[in-house]
Amino acid sequence: MPEKKSVPIQVSVSALSKLLDCPYYGKGTTLISGVSNLKEAEKGDLVFLAHRKFQSQLEHTKASAAIIPIDETYDRIPVIKSKNPQLSFLQAVEYFFQPHKPALGIHSLAYVSPTAKVGKDVSIGAFVFIGDEVEIGNRAVIFPFVAIYPHSKVGRDCIIHSHVSIREETFIGNRVIIHNGAVIGSDGFGYIQDTRKAHVKIPQIGNVVIQDNVEIGANTTIDRASLGKTIIRKGTKIDNLVQVAHNVEIGSNVILAAQTGIAGSSIIGKKVMVGGQVGIADHVEIGDNVILAAKSGVSKDIPANSMVGGSPHLDMREWQKACLSIPQLYDMLKEIKKLKKKIEALEKAQR
Amino acid sequence: MPEKKSVPIQVSVSALSKLLDCPYYGKGTTLISGVSNLKEAEKGDLVFLAHRKFQSQLEHTKASAAIIPIDETYDRIPVIKSKNPQLSFLQAVEYFFQPHKPALGIHSLAYVSPTAKVGKDVSIGAFVFIGDEVEIGNRAVIFPFVAIYPHSKVGRDCIIHSHVSIREETFIGNRVIIHNGAVIGSDGFGYIQDTRKAHVKIPQIGNVVIQDNVEIGANTTIDRASLGKTIIRKGTKIDNLVQVAHNVEIGSNVILAAQTGIAGSSIIGKKVMVGGQVGIADHVEIGDNVILAAKSGVSKDIPANSMVGGSPHLDMREWQKACLSIPQLYDMLKEIKKLKKKIEALEKAQR
Amino acid sequence: MPEKKSVPIQVSVSALSKLLDCPYYGKGTTLISGVSNLKEAEKGDLVFLAHRKFQSQLEHTKASAAIIPIDETYDRIPVIKSKNPQLSFLQAVEYFFQPHKPALGIHSLAYVSPTAKVGKDVSIGAFVFIGDEVEIGNRAVIFPFVAIYPHSKVGRDCIIHSHVSIREETFIGNRVIIHNGAVIGSDGFGYIQDTRKAHVKIPQIGNVVIQDNVEIGANTTIDRASLGKTIIRKGTKIDNLVQVAHNVEIGSNVILAAQTGIAGSSIIGKKVMVGGQVGIADHVEIGDNVILAAKSGVSKDIPANSMVGGSPHLDMREWQKACLSIPQLYDMLKEIKKLKKKIEALEKAQR
Repeated sequence: MPEKKSVPIQVSVSALSKLLDCPYYGKGTTLISGVSNLKEAEKGDLVFLAHRKFQSQLEHTKASAAIIPIDETYDRIPVIKSKNPQLSFLQAVEYFFQPHKPALGIHSLAYVSPTAKVGKDVSIGAFVFIGDEVEIGNRAVIFPFVAIYPHSKVGRDCIIHSHVSIREETFIGNRVIIHNGAVIGSDGFGYIQDTRKAHVKIPQIGNVVIQDNVEIGANTTIDRASLGKTIIRKGTKIDNLVQVAHNVEIGSNVILAAQTGIAGSSIIGKKVMVGGQVGIADHVEIGDNVILAAKSGVSKDIPANSMVGGSPHLDMREWQKACLSIPQLYDMLKEIKKLKKKIEALEKAQR
Repeated sequence: MPEKKSVPIQVSVSALSKLLDCPYYGKGTTLISGVSNLKEAEKGDLVFLAHRKFQSQLEHTKASAAIIPIDETYDRIPVIKSKNPQLSFLQAVEYFFQPHKPALGIHSLAYVSPTAKVGKDVSIGAFVFIGDEVEIGNRAVIFPFVAIYPHSKVGRDCIIHSHVSIREETFIGNRVIIHNGAVIGSDGFGYIQDTRKAHVKIPQIGNVVIQDNVEIGANTTIDRASLGKTIIRKGTKIDNLVQVAHNVEIGSNVILAAQTGIAGSSIIGKKVMVGGQVGIADHVEIGDNVILAAKSGVSKDIPANSMVGGSPHLDMREWQKACLSIPQLYDMLKEIKKLKKKIEALEKAQR
Repeated sequence: MPEKKSVPIQVSVSALSKLLDCPYYGKGTTLISGVSNLKEAEKGDLVFLAHRKFQSQLEHTKASAAIIPIDETYDRIPVIKSKNPQLSFLQAVEYFFQPHKPALGIHSLAYVSPTAKVGKDVSIGAFVFIGDEVEIGNRAVIFPFVAIYPHSKVGRDCIIHSHVSIREETFIGNRVIIHNGAVIGSDGFGYIQDTRKAHVKIPQIGNVVIQDNVEIGANTTIDRASLGKTIIRKGTKIDNLVQVAHNVEIGSNVILAAQTGIAGSSIIGKKVMVGGQVGIADHVEIGDNVILAAKSGVSKDIPANSMVGGSPHLDMREWQKACLSIPQLYDMLKEIKKLKKKIEALEKAQR
């Protein structure tokens, strides 16, 4: 039962210390063969201590070594001291962890159009469909059951997981990761009503452009533009089950948490952070560095550097005050009635 | 980098004017080879002016011709005048834009059961699975990685995009479009508790019926009925990531925006418009022509022709008044305390 | 047009009575060949009467026999009396209804790695991909276009529907049902910011463990742990389009309704009932038997046996009181202003 990676690599604490460019304390010959968290670590694992408050867990971990903050000390097991233990740990993870990919080359059960251009050193799995005139960059990794419709381009070092649909004319940059079942370039949701109030489809003839270093979550959907482009700019990270409608433009280094939806033609600035299950109406503009709390509902523009919450959204402090007040609403109602009676009594007495 | 359609068709403004049955003004020999929007148009493109307010954009467009409202005038580039510029533009789009589809016929890498009945002039792509006793209508277009389980029927002129699952016994009418990754006919979510409070599955043995001219968005899920049918009536349009539970009935010409969910056995009337991320509880009935604002939460019946918002939902005007009041809640609390003190002072003075 | 199951099985009411261990009244030789609901039943169908209030529907049903509560009487058609008519009906359904599955064996168009271990009596459809070192238990049913990445395990008697992605190192117990398009083991959504505020991916090297008797809905996504495990415990049922983030732990016999999202590292107790479109923040702990109303937003721990609603969540009674008060908010505002004026008048008069 393969619940644990089989990692054949072994390295000593002293060698790892050199690799990470961080000093070690304790027995340098201790062998490390994997990484884990404090609670679940086993013999041979490396762990890290992010905060002093987790030190008690260090006491009980079965790990063989730990990366700890530079100003901490510990001597039950060998430690490596780092200014940024999490970052050093990530470097160690990349040393030990080889993410799975299909074998190098094109699997005999894949279909690649004779007019497609495929780069060097790609890993294209079984049951992949690559349409006419598609371009695939060097070292791209494409898992089974990916459909790439004609005239699309996938850049260098991309990873496209199983069941992803990349519709016609989509342009995907370099080092983009797309998780299982995501749909890039489905038709936007656009209709006009005919004279009998039936909905007539507006052909969606634009496309989707995804820039470098974007990551897109599982079963997320990004619609093609009706005309022009839907754009996701470089470094933006999108979680699972997110909806991005036609003609939306998302700035660079944005975070969109799961199940958020952005309606047509809205524009999201740089470095915006959007919580889970947020809804953003169509034709809205959100400035750079805005933070939207989970479940916010946004139907108006938001200036740069704001924090908002609630639906319809309010400035964060207003929203927090409203949240504190809502549980008191019922008592307020009763209190108002009481005050009203007292005033009536006072008025009567005065007459 | 194929960011733009390659459209070999070229037509003169005067020919297009005849085609659209609308008069033209300016140089009729100007050649048009594509369509675009005002901002992104290039030489050879046709654009349209929906509203007078966009006239300044017309001034700077690189388009070679424009469709404008019948009561407007413009002479920098040739124009075609129409009573409904958007509708005339859509007609032009259909002339220029050939949506991509797999080659005519059945791809050699598709699997079609020997007991399936496939109509004439279909386009069935590679890696399509068509199960036993399935019927596929004439001119249906089926993209790679579509699974059609046994005993289902897909009507004439349907377009089924990659990764769609059509479960057993599903009935799909004519001219239905289903986008990538949608699931039609998955089991409804029904359990009863046994004596130990474990959940026992209720077999979901009904099916899904989708009538003519319906469009279903990417990664949307429509569950089969536990008994009987889940029904989507003709002309209804469903956006991405929508959930329709077992035994739901949706009337004709309804609009369901993205990420909306409808729980079991609810009934939606005709021409209802549902915003994004709306939740509708089970066994609820919503009358014809109702409008539900985005993020509404509905747990009670709604009479025909209503507009509602909020969660739990309120009549739209009530909801808008509540939205205006919520930011004042905290000040109301403070005001009430102040008034209380003043009344106490008044009462004291009166004694 | 196959809108109805073709059920060749026929059984008499008297034989069915023996099978269900419940007495029958009326003509025992009546033949039953299917099951339906009261409204849509046809000749040959068996129906059941859950509540006395539906008795009028029994009057007009075309069914040939009905299961009714033990204390009811009816004589127009033969009846079977049961202490629990629904449970007896489910037993009858299982007798009549054979859920569709691919033919026994491994389809010639499936790809099964030579290093995979496949159990006995499996049904593996066309276009299935089973990676290296995967283990598949006896009698497992796997539909077309399922991708099982290397080093995963699927237990005995599982049913995996089309387009499911099971990522590397996933562990799935026995009798698990996974509906179409669900993704198990996609990367968790974890980044740290580098010095230039760009998001650096934290490798997600944990896995997902799904215990026995779990059911997972269509297009639902369950992310692998960053380190350690994301766990769904036995008997839990998850609806469509649900998001379960990395390192979440869900207790046994939990119900998660459609479009709910649970953020990273949160812990859900046993027998918790979660309504649709609920959002649960990261690192939250929810006790056993908690009930969360639809659309709740939870950002704090909830003690066992609570009922909550609203966003941010409140105790259910508080939430219901707040819901009653919200439509009165606007009038409260006006009333407070009125009272304020009266008090000023009183104060003036007193001076």
